[in-house]
Amino acid sequence: MKFSSKIIEDAVEAMSALPSIGKKSALRLVLHLAGSRTQKIQRLITSLQALDTDLKTCQYCHNYSDQDICDICSDPTRNKTLVCVVGSAKDVMAIEATQQYSGVYHLIGGVISPLEGIGPEELNIDTLIHKIREESVLELIMALSPTIEGDTTIYYISKLLKDDNIKISTIARGVSFGGELEYADELTLGRSIHSRTDYNKQLSL
Amino acid sequence: MKFSSKIIEDAVEAMSALPSIGKKSALRLVLHLAGSRTQKIQRLITSLQALDTDLKTCQYCHNYSDQDICDICSDPTRNKTLVCVVGSAKDVMAIEATQQYSGVYHLIGGVISPLEGIGPEELNIDTLIHKIREESVLELIMALSPTIEGDTTIYYISKLLKDDNIKISTIARGVSFGGELEYADELTLGRSIHSRTDYNKQLSL
Repeated sequence: MKFSSKIIEDAVEAMSALPSIGKKSALRLVLHLAGSRTQKIQRLITSLQALDTDLKTCQYCHNYSDQDICDICSDPTRNKTLVCVVGSAKDVMAIEATQQYSGVYHLIGGVISPLEGIGPEELNIDTLIHKIREESVLELIMALSPTIEGDTTIYYISKLLKDDNIKISTIARGVSFGGELEYADELTLGRSIHSRTDYNKQLSL
Repeated sequence: MKFSSKIIEDAVEAMSALPSIGKKSALRLVLHLAGSRTQKIQRLITSLQALDTDLKTCQYCHNYSDQDICDICSDPTRNKTLVCVVGSAKDVMAIEATQQYSGVYHLIGGVISPLEGIGPEELNIDTLIHKIREESVLELIMALSPTIEGDTTIYYISKLLKDDNIKISTIARGVSFGGELEYADELTLGRSIHSRTDYNKQLSL
C-alpha cells in the first residue's frame, strides 16, 4: 500500500499492530478517524492514556481495577474462603455475567505453556499459594481453559498444595446446554459420559 | 458487560465507536493494550494525535497529505490536464496501486445522496468546477462508485459543465477479470454486453 501521507501510514502501522486488525482494516479505521471530528480522536487518546497510566491491578486477585483493591475483593458479601483461579480478566467477566458465583478470584495471567515460553514463574502462582496459606482459603475452583496447558497448570498447582488442607475442584466439563450431541467432539462427549452426574442429585439442586 | 474498571469501560466505549468494531472486539483490543508495554500504547496515541492536529488536505485535490499540496499534485511529471474524480482517499490508493494512471485527482468527498442528507454543496464540486475553468483541464474521468448515487453525481457534474469544452468519461464497467459469467449480476452483465468493445481495438492497446 502506498500512502499519500506519512501521518496516515504511521497510524495504519500502529493500528495494525493490534490483534486481528490487518492493514486494510487499519486503513479503514484511520481514514474514518481522519474524517472524524477532533472530539472523537481526543476521546480515544484520553482513554488510551488512562489505560497506560491510571489502570491498576488489584493487589489481591491481579484483576484490572481503578483502585489498589478491586470491587470484588473489597466487597464484604463475597466469600473469601472460596477462590476461583482463572487465566485472565475476560474469564472473570464471563463468570460474573452468570451471577452464579459469590466467591473471589485469582488471576494467574495465563497457563503454563513451555512452547510459548510461559513457565510457572511467569504466572501469579506464588501470590496464590501465599494467599491460600495466609487467609485460610477452604476451596480452590480451577476455571482454566480446557486444554493440555490448562490441565498441566491445574496439576502443577495441585502438586504445590498437596500438603495443604484445601479442597481443589475444577469446573464441570461436558456437552453445552442447547448443544446437539452429534456435534460435540469425541473427547468432550467421552468425558461427559465418564463424569455423568446423578439425576436425583441434580433435581435437588 | 460489567467491567472491573471504569478506565477499561471508557476505552471499550471509545474503541467500539469505530466502524465495524463491536463491544466484544473492542474489549479484546483494550485488554490486549492493557497488557502491553507502555511503548505500544504511546505509539498509538502519538499517531492518533498527529492524525488530529498535523494531517492536512491538499488544497488542489483534497486528498490527505502532510503538506499543503500533495505529492501527486506537486509532481511535475503528472498530466494536469487529465483529472480523475473520485469519492475518497481510498479510491486514490486503489487507482494508484494499478500504476496505470498518470493524471491528477480530485476528491469530491462522497456522492450525492439525498437519503443521507448529502447534497452537492456538501461535496468538493465547486472547487472542481473552478479548477477545470482556471487550469485548462481537457478530460475528466469519473471514477465514482457504480451506484445510483454515483450515477446521479456524475450526471449533476456533467450538467454543470455542459457549456464547457471538456471531455467527460467514466471508467469502464463490466465483468471483472477472472470473474465467472454465471456469477456476474444481471445489471453488470447486461451493461457489459451493451458496452461491448471492438476486439481489434483491444489488441492494439
